[in-house]
Amino acid sequence: MTTLINEPVRNGVDTATLFATLDAVKAAPEAARFQFRASNEWISGTHSRSTIDNFFGVGEERSHERTFHFDADHPAVLVGRDNGPTPVEYVLHALATCLTAGLANVAAARGVRLTEVRSTVVGDIDLNGILGLDHNVRNGYEKIGVRFTIKGDAPAEVLKAIVEQSRKRSAVFDIITNQVPVAIEVEAA
Amino acid sequence: MTTLINEPVRNGVDTATLFATLDAVKAAPEAARFQFRASNEWISGTHSRSTIDNFFGVGEERSHERTFHFDADHPAVLVGRDNGPTPVEYVLHALATCLTAGLANVAAARGVRLTEVRSTVVGDIDLNGILGLDHNVRNGYEKIGVRFTIKGDAPAEVLKAIVEQSRKRSAVFDIITNQVPVAIEVEAA
Repeated sequence: MTTLINEPVRNGVDTATLFATLDAVKAAPEAARFQFRASNEWISGTHSRSTIDNFFGVGEERSHERTFHFDADHPAVLVGRDNGPTPVEYVLHALATCLTAGLANVAAARGVRLTEVRSTVVGDIDLNGILGLDHNVRNGYEKIGVRFTIKGDAPAEVLKAIVEQSRKRSAVFDIITNQVPVAIEVEAA
Repeated sequence: MTTLINEPVRNGVDTATLFATLDAVKAAPEAARFQFRASNEWISGTHSRSTIDNFFGVGEERSHERTFHFDADHPAVLVGRDNGPTPVEYVLHALATCLTAGLANVAAARGVRLTEVRSTVVGDIDLNGILGLDHNVRNGYEKIGVRFTIKGDAPAEVLKAIVEQSRKRSAVFDIITNQVPVAIEVEAA
């Protein structure tokens, strides 16, 4: 483990900017209000394409450095054409990337240099739910399991504590394990 | 609206296969047990990359027709390098694509021909939560709003009912609005 002073960038994390950002938000909490967005266009069958581009944060409208497009579909076994992963696979990806980004930040803040972080996320789902065949089966995942392999210049207990702190502060972990209200409006013509 | 008999494919949905799949799962409910997976590798800072490839379903290991890779990162304003959308933006994409796939299937099953489906999904999040600056603020989205524009050869009420049925049978809507248990294991070295 190293001190913060001599290494403004650790694990690819600009810790000076990270701490400056924390200080800025402490001074102006409303800067932390963000709105993220995705727009989607149906293509055919279960295939659709989303665009991710602009968002609101730190008091103003912002754009990503480029516009991102992602396709989702069902595989043939689920009566699709496999033009992209299923929506539920994107959820697993979101969870993995959220926990991983968090632990890189936490490790940097704690002066730990990471050398490798890998994870696999698996979600068990019984499609009798979404097929409407068994009303005792939920539509979504019954359970999700995450397995991390993490290596760095700190004892195993310190590395495990970094993962635990990331879990405690993960947006996607909270979204999945707790409830988020979703309102749907429809303009039909 | 049209009858089912003369149109095996409607909205790009192979309704004959859709109904055959439903019958097959009715006869063998265990076929509906799926496991989806994503594996992830940390790259640097908040940047990581997931791979989506194989899954389990209908009693056997399966693979997508190709392997999918997706990057996630934070934008500069969140101390990242914007190599991909944020994890929480992927969640919005997952919700849009799940509801859209569902409504195409429901419309096909109900004999409705869709001509256009667009949606925008917005998620409001106060980053005082994940920054650990306000313990009264949750980590994830406070709320999510979805706005659909749907056009087809049916009255507005019928089109709205199709969206509502998709919501009732959406895996991602359930995952976000209800609770999914997530277990995390860590191998540290």
